[in-house]
Amino acid sequence: MTVVDQIVRRGAEAAPGFAESPASARAALLEAIADALDGGADALVAVAGEETALPEGRLRGELARTTAQLRKFAGVIVEGSYLEVVIDHADGSDVPPRPDLRRMLRPIGPVAVFAASNFPFAFSVAGGDTASALAVGCPVIVKTHPGHPRTSETTAALVDQAVAGQGLPAGVFQTAAGFEEGLELVDADALEAVAFTGSLRGGRALLDRCTARPRPIPFYGELGSLNPVVVTAAADAARGGELAAGLAGSFQLGDGQFCTKPGLVLVPAGSVLEAQLPQHVVAAHPRMLTETIAAGFETGRDRAAAVPGVAIVAGGASATAPTVLAADAATLLTHRELLDEVFGPVTVLVRYADEAELDRVLEALEGSLTMTLHAEPSEDVRGLATWMTSRAGRVLFSGWPTGVAVSWAQHHGGPWPATNTQFTSVGATAVRRFLRPVVYQDAPESVLPDALHDANPLGIPRRVDGRLEV
Amino acid sequence: MTVVDQIVRRGAEAAPGFAESPASARAALLEAIADALDGGADALVAVAGEETALPEGRLRGELARTTAQLRKFAGVIVEGSYLEVVIDHADGSDVPPRPDLRRMLRPIGPVAVFAASNFPFAFSVAGGDTASALAVGCPVIVKTHPGHPRTSETTAALVDQAVAGQGLPAGVFQTAAGFEEGLELVDADALEAVAFTGSLRGGRALLDRCTARPRPIPFYGELGSLNPVVVTAAADAARGGELAAGLAGSFQLGDGQFCTKPGLVLVPAGSVLEAQLPQHVVAAHPRMLTETIAAGFETGRDRAAAVPGVAIVAGGASATAPTVLAADAATLLTHRELLDEVFGPVTVLVRYADEAELDRVLEALEGSLTMTLHAEPSEDVRGLATWMTSRAGRVLFSGWPTGVAVSWAQHHGGPWPATNTQFTSVGATAVRRFLRPVVYQDAPESVLPDALHDANPLGIPRRVDGRLEV
Repeated sequence: MTVVDQIVRRGAEAAPGFAESPASARAALLEAIADALDGGADALVAVAGEETALPEGRLRGELARTTAQLRKFAGVIVEGSYLEVVIDHADGSDVPPRPDLRRMLRPIGPVAVFAASNFPFAFSVAGGDTASALAVGCPVIVKTHPGHPRTSETTAALVDQAVAGQGLPAGVFQTAAGFEEGLELVDADALEAVAFTGSLRGGRALLDRCTARPRPIPFYGELGSLNPVVVTAAADAARGGELAAGLAGSFQLGDGQFCTKPGLVLVPAGSVLEAQLPQHVVAAHPRMLTETIAAGFETGRDRAAAVPGVAIVAGGASATAPTVLAADAATLLTHRELLDEVFGPVTVLVRYADEAELDRVLEALEGSLTMTLHAEPSEDVRGLATWMTSRAGRVLFSGWPTGVAVSWAQHHGGPWPATNTQFTSVGATAVRRFLRPVVYQDAPESVLPDALHDANPLGIPRRVDGRLEV
Repeated sequence: MTVVDQIVRRGAEAAPGFAESPASARAALLEAIADALDGGADALVAVAGEETALPEGRLRGELARTTAQLRKFAGVIVEGSYLEVVIDHADGSDVPPRPDLRRMLRPIGPVAVFAASNFPFAFSVAGGDTASALAVGCPVIVKTHPGHPRTSETTAALVDQAVAGQGLPAGVFQTAAGFEEGLELVDADALEAVAFTGSLRGGRALLDRCTARPRPIPFYGELGSLNPVVVTAAADAARGGELAAGLAGSFQLGDGQFCTKPGLVLVPAGSVLEAQLPQHVVAAHPRMLTETIAAGFETGRDRAAAVPGVAIVAGGASATAPTVLAADAATLLTHRELLDEVFGPVTVLVRYADEAELDRVLEALEGSLTMTLHAEPSEDVRGLATWMTSRAGRVLFSGWPTGVAVSWAQHHGGPWPATNTQFTSVGATAVRRFLRPVVYQDAPESVLPDALHDANPLGIPRRVDGRLEV
């Protein structure tokens, strides 16, 4: 039996008991993990700073986001709507006649979480995927990211303490490291799902692998995203300088290493934005997360810059300097490789001559996590806004896509290649990935979970005989 | 451009307008389809009777179920919860600070529905998959089943009239026929999802094909299911004769051609049930839906009967006669092929000596749509009932799994190989398959859909700043 086999077996053994633990116990676990991370903040930030080159302020902010996220999921499960309880009492007059049916969501079992490189806390060992799976009672096995191994170990040790402190078995939370071990994990018979944040190429391989198993399991990938921005001629005329500053801040934030970095900006030809953007582009070399990412950025940026008709508007002088490229719409439409995501501080301005040309570029876009519109209040953009919802999971107005709030309404997903499912990896509804419905038919109350008792002892929102009861 | 290309293109062209149509218009469409089917009942039942050999009473009942289902989905979308609206107003004090975020579900676009053979109305051209996709604003392309081509045509003509009568474009509802055409449909670039009810083998092939596309799309398969039944020794002693009659009725209903047919029944050794079951088994030849199904039944039944240690308890004399097989638990555990679903009127009794042996058989079971428990009120079956929810989507007590009510709470799905997703194909939540979330960030009210306006002009249930408002 390999190490990974043993890990998955321990997760599977812990699953039934963890599934039956009350929401209050799981909420206490999430709070305890948050407290442990807050208590270990200095050590965590120090080691993450050494491994990722991210500045201390950013890391402290990300850790605060991570612990706030854990506490928010605690609130979500205590509130109880996430169980989606529906009770239909028997009704012989229905067509067909119906028995007593009581539906709720149940945890799916042990899940694998593949950590991301670019958020060593918020999308790593104790990040959103781990928090949402633990919240609903699924044991987690984190495949740690090789970009920050000691940060992963330090975080895992704090989570382990919290798990033990709550009297839960160690199988509730475990880690595994290594590329081959990750594949072995995906193949493990007892695994029930895989959550992944990373590259399109890696995600595609894992999706295929999850599907090819003798027993296919769901793969929840958060993959590539171009995050297009549209600036209307009126918006550029009214506040092109302000937009230039905003775009510069967004595409260089975190040295462009965000999945929501605006990678393509559609601007009117001869825009104020293009003229003023260079003054906001930082000349200093960014410090990339890993050498692989630095090399990938340089290669992708240089490939785009080498396309005939593409100009370097700002930066690009040194290997990893932030860079702004620009091209006419016609160039983009004949060189679709300009639509490939390049991870790092680069964005491509695409100049459109008129609305017809703008429409042709829009039609060429694939799915993204976000799309952004900058227009003036006097413009009727209803049609464009609605269309944007067909290409992105989050549509922003007069803002910038970097920065993803954690709340009840948030959706962090979108049409392929942004994600491969209709689920989100950020926000309250992220828990839905790790749940499946079951319905009890004509069950005696003695066998029903509390959530399905007529008296509603948990006091949770439910639909009873078609009516929502809050 | 092939015929299928043209069909998918028409679907894609109809999608944006259909997506924007109000719920009231889509509800009117569903009602009109139901009315048209009710109006054409005599013709539909006549042609379906000729093609499927199903008796008139069954067909009239199934048609009533089908039209009731259409009307229920109309009610679901007018109620509006299905949009899962969540509104979070901006909050600068949140960690991280949050903008104004407004989430709702939107239709995914044109979907393919692969019709099943065994329900020429309820799981065919105007069945549950079609109803749930149309309900939420997704154009439907039905791949008709070759087992009832004229029934499909007659149904489709009535749906076409209803679509035209509501002033909707023909691209909202279309059909395609033929095996190769079905594959072409799955591969079509503009298709957004595939719903399928049928064999595990066919479903697995389509799942792989949906995943292998350059742009993967969701596959919603309702595949194989053994629907195990557990009879405790106490239940057998108390009412074994009654259980024998009930089981006989359930496994022979519709000549065993239901996805919820009980295919495996765990009984105590020397059970009253086994002794009394033969007297309820019908000697007459069933009329199977198609020759392929009849041949598959005979082959599967004979393969199971030939396993050393398997006895024929009743029937089985003629090619397609209803059959009861029986074996000891040890035989089953060494011949796992007895766990393969055989479509048709056959069930396998598995005799267990004690609870330990029962547990070993239970552990060997894969996922099913249903599991059923017959126990006495004095027995503590809480652990067993909870365990059953890990292997099935619907857990029944003191009943039989055939018969699937259409209601808010219903769940018709389960762990692989019953389905490959966490979704249902029957009941109100079946619509969720054809929806994806989008969130508007800081959008001016002028671009927001009515569902997201602060004033809630549609009067639908929503979550606002974390609180459910009904």
